[in-house]
Amino acid sequence: MPAALAAYSIRLRARIRNRPGVLGSLATAIGTVGGNLMGIEMVATDGATVTRDLVVYCPSEARARDVESTARHVDGIEVLEVEDRTFALHRRGKLSIESKRPLRDRDDLAMAYTPGVARVCTAIAGDSRLAHRFTMKANTVAVVTDGTAVLGLGDIGPEAALPVMEGKAVLFKEFGGVDAVPVCLRVSGADELVETVRRLEPMFGGINLEDIAAPRCFEVEERLTDLLSIPVFHDDQHGTAVVALAALRNALKLVDKRLEDIRIVLSGAGAAGVAIAKIMLSAGAGDIVAVDRKGAIHAGREGLDPSKQWLADNTNQDRRSGGLQEVLAGADAFIGVSAPGLLSREDVEKMAEGSIVFALANPVPEVLPEEVEGVVAVMATGRSDYPNQINNVLCFPGIFRGALDAGATRITEGMKLAAADAIAAAVPPDELSTVEVVPSVFHPGVVGTVAEGVARAAAADGVVRAE
Amino acid sequence: MPAALAAYSIRLRARIRNRPGVLGSLATAIGTVGGNLMGIEMVATDGATVTRDLVVYCPSEARARDVESTARHVDGIEVLEVEDRTFALHRRGKLSIESKRPLRDRDDLAMAYTPGVARVCTAIAGDSRLAHRFTMKANTVAVVTDGTAVLGLGDIGPEAALPVMEGKAVLFKEFGGVDAVPVCLRVSGADELVETVRRLEPMFGGINLEDIAAPRCFEVEERLTDLLSIPVFHDDQHGTAVVALAALRNALKLVDKRLEDIRIVLSGAGAAGVAIAKIMLSAGAGDIVAVDRKGAIHAGREGLDPSKQWLADNTNQDRRSGGLQEVLAGADAFIGVSAPGLLSREDVEKMAEGSIVFALANPVPEVLPEEVEGVVAVMATGRSDYPNQINNVLCFPGIFRGALDAGATRITEGMKLAAADAIAAAVPPDELSTVEVVPSVFHPGVVGTVAEGVARAAAADGVVRAE
Repeated sequence: MPAALAAYSIRLRARIRNRPGVLGSLATAIGTVGGNLMGIEMVATDGATVTRDLVVYCPSEARARDVESTARHVDGIEVLEVEDRTFALHRRGKLSIESKRPLRDRDDLAMAYTPGVARVCTAIAGDSRLAHRFTMKANTVAVVTDGTAVLGLGDIGPEAALPVMEGKAVLFKEFGGVDAVPVCLRVSGADELVETVRRLEPMFGGINLEDIAAPRCFEVEERLTDLLSIPVFHDDQHGTAVVALAALRNALKLVDKRLEDIRIVLSGAGAAGVAIAKIMLSAGAGDIVAVDRKGAIHAGREGLDPSKQWLADNTNQDRRSGGLQEVLAGADAFIGVSAPGLLSREDVEKMAEGSIVFALANPVPEVLPEEVEGVVAVMATGRSDYPNQINNVLCFPGIFRGALDAGATRITEGMKLAAADAIAAAVPPDELSTVEVVPSVFHPGVVGTVAEGVARAAAADGVVRAE
Repeated sequence: MPAALAAYSIRLRARIRNRPGVLGSLATAIGTVGGNLMGIEMVATDGATVTRDLVVYCPSEARARDVESTARHVDGIEVLEVEDRTFALHRRGKLSIESKRPLRDRDDLAMAYTPGVARVCTAIAGDSRLAHRFTMKANTVAVVTDGTAVLGLGDIGPEAALPVMEGKAVLFKEFGGVDAVPVCLRVSGADELVETVRRLEPMFGGINLEDIAAPRCFEVEERLTDLLSIPVFHDDQHGTAVVALAALRNALKLVDKRLEDIRIVLSGAGAAGVAIAKIMLSAGAGDIVAVDRKGAIHAGREGLDPSKQWLADNTNQDRRSGGLQEVLAGADAFIGVSAPGLLSREDVEKMAEGSIVFALANPVPEVLPEEVEGVVAVMATGRSDYPNQINNVLCFPGIFRGALDAGATRITEGMKLAAADAIAAAVPPDELSTVEVVPSVFHPGVVGTVAEGVARAAAADGVVRAE
């Protein structure tokens, strides 16, 4: 039976006959259909009965319904209320927009609003750079999507993408202290998307692009980076790439190899794949062979779109061809951002000694850690229920925190590399192990270290706004 | 000397020799150049000196500088630091975007973000109306401007408009519990403005248009109202109009006249003027004569733009012509949204018995209350330092609170009238007087009363979204 998860948890309020064994038989009944009783709270009692709230983690929505109906049939139990905890948490949204300071009286009003505010407006009208100092622009990032590639759900549109962008804004604030505004746009095509973000630039200090389908996302990021004077970052590309590089750096220490010497097989040539190839090359990777559904991408292959053509021109120096299995044989590292179950244990066995496998397809990786136990030296996935989670949350809060603190006008390759180095360094040498090549997302020091590195790199790269 | 105001206040940190009379001579010196010492706090002491923070209200920026230099010359005083309190309050903006619930662990993350969030996305993809229930759309309003008519400052652009929009968002939250996002757009013309807001609709539950130049603002509001399925409200037009109607209803009770019987002279045919004419007519006003720089607007006058043509067609039934002074003679009420100092005491003396004067030009009204004392029965302005402030804050938080609570798809004329009635009713009969025809903006009950009235009117007008 699959694991019971918080994502499918329910709160079940029940009036329970106050007699030994009744609560126990309810707990047992819940367990038999896959529910996991995670918490019990008393709500009220009248002597004969006790009303309790039970939090039950379930493996799926269907199992949550089974838990409910099973509970309704337990003798001595009256189910009063069942709430889906994930939907309850989303009720009326996850964000709140607050005034930093209270408005207590007319004098507060006279400074925060008219007439005082006119003085600040006039100052900014005279020198627009002051907007970075005296408005929300100082600390606010737009989380921009057109809803065309949301999680694994595809093109579900801007309204349905909103819960993800709100979640991202929550992560920005909780991890990076960055104010983030979801910007879900009803646009068609790259031109409208680019033009709309350009029109929105005045109130933002940075643009985080999110869940935009490839290849549109490449063009959108490139054009916006050219057009705007604030940092633009497509997290699905570069967030994953930065964290994968950090993890690879640490993994290579464990197998005592150098990035310059290894051959990497990259499965998936979408947004994340191309970004991973680019950052690995910037970091000095020796050879990379990118593979898509049709096999290895190499110079001379016909019918490549521009981003795959870039891969053909810049990777696979030996012009290897053939399927994933063929090019994987003898490789040092596999990085997958492709599809579930592409690899078998046998495939991985054919890799070089000390093999590194990052199977990042979500939610089901290219190969499960338990399938390759004893074969790989270091294994990572995108999942929180296995060791070594390659999670963007390690990157984007610190990237933007550093960029905003530095007054950066763009995100350079150097800033991304600095972020990767900082993430890798957040695992102290004595803690580094095959089950900890990246820090936990809840590791308290990560964001600060990343931000400092990014800010230093921005200064070194000369992309800091003149005051 | 003009009054010392919070808007021009400074915080002055000074090391003060610890001897009787030194602090007193500082206070006196500050007073002689127009400063008003509003607060003193001790910061530190070393026996020989005491370091204190002094809050000084000043009449202007120039006077604030005088206060500083005067203080620097007082014997026994060393000025350590001078801070402009209005700019200090604006540092890094006035808003904070917060997560409603903390992210404590992986389980919280799994519900607010992946994988749990995907369930909510899927539900909304299946039925987009659920966005109003499970996202920020439930309670979030965009405060939209193109920066073309900001306060009295004119076309200062979207960056410079941002402090005002942030201030408005603060008011939305503090008074109405509405989450509001400043949306300062770099657009040219009505088409781009309308199209951009349409693209932004997915994440908002309402659109508050703000500080958009006339006549563009009329077209923008009308087109957006037709295009969008969420309420659109141009506060500069209707906010002022609603509160003016509320004040007029109460003022008429005091002079024992009926709206149906009076003649109103309206000075100013811009955004607010047209909206005032419309709501007064909807409320049953007998006759209105609108006056612009060229005199009374009447049927047959040449060269009128569309909104003035509307006034010509729908007001001034007797086709009065001539200047403001001519048409004001014998009128019952004057409502000015025009320019400072247009009226004299003599002009007001020629009005009918029991005259009502709302001089709403900001910051300097058409006529000052002290100039017409003893002549007018009821006087109101837009200013907080006189009685009867006609302040939009009485209207927009309650309008949107009510519209969001009701699930309204638009703001109808009935909803605006209901808001005016609720504001008028918020002054209890026994408190109604010539110096209190509208409640204070800090009156605790106003927003709730307005919201209830607006929600009821939305239901009555059949503009409530089907669940």
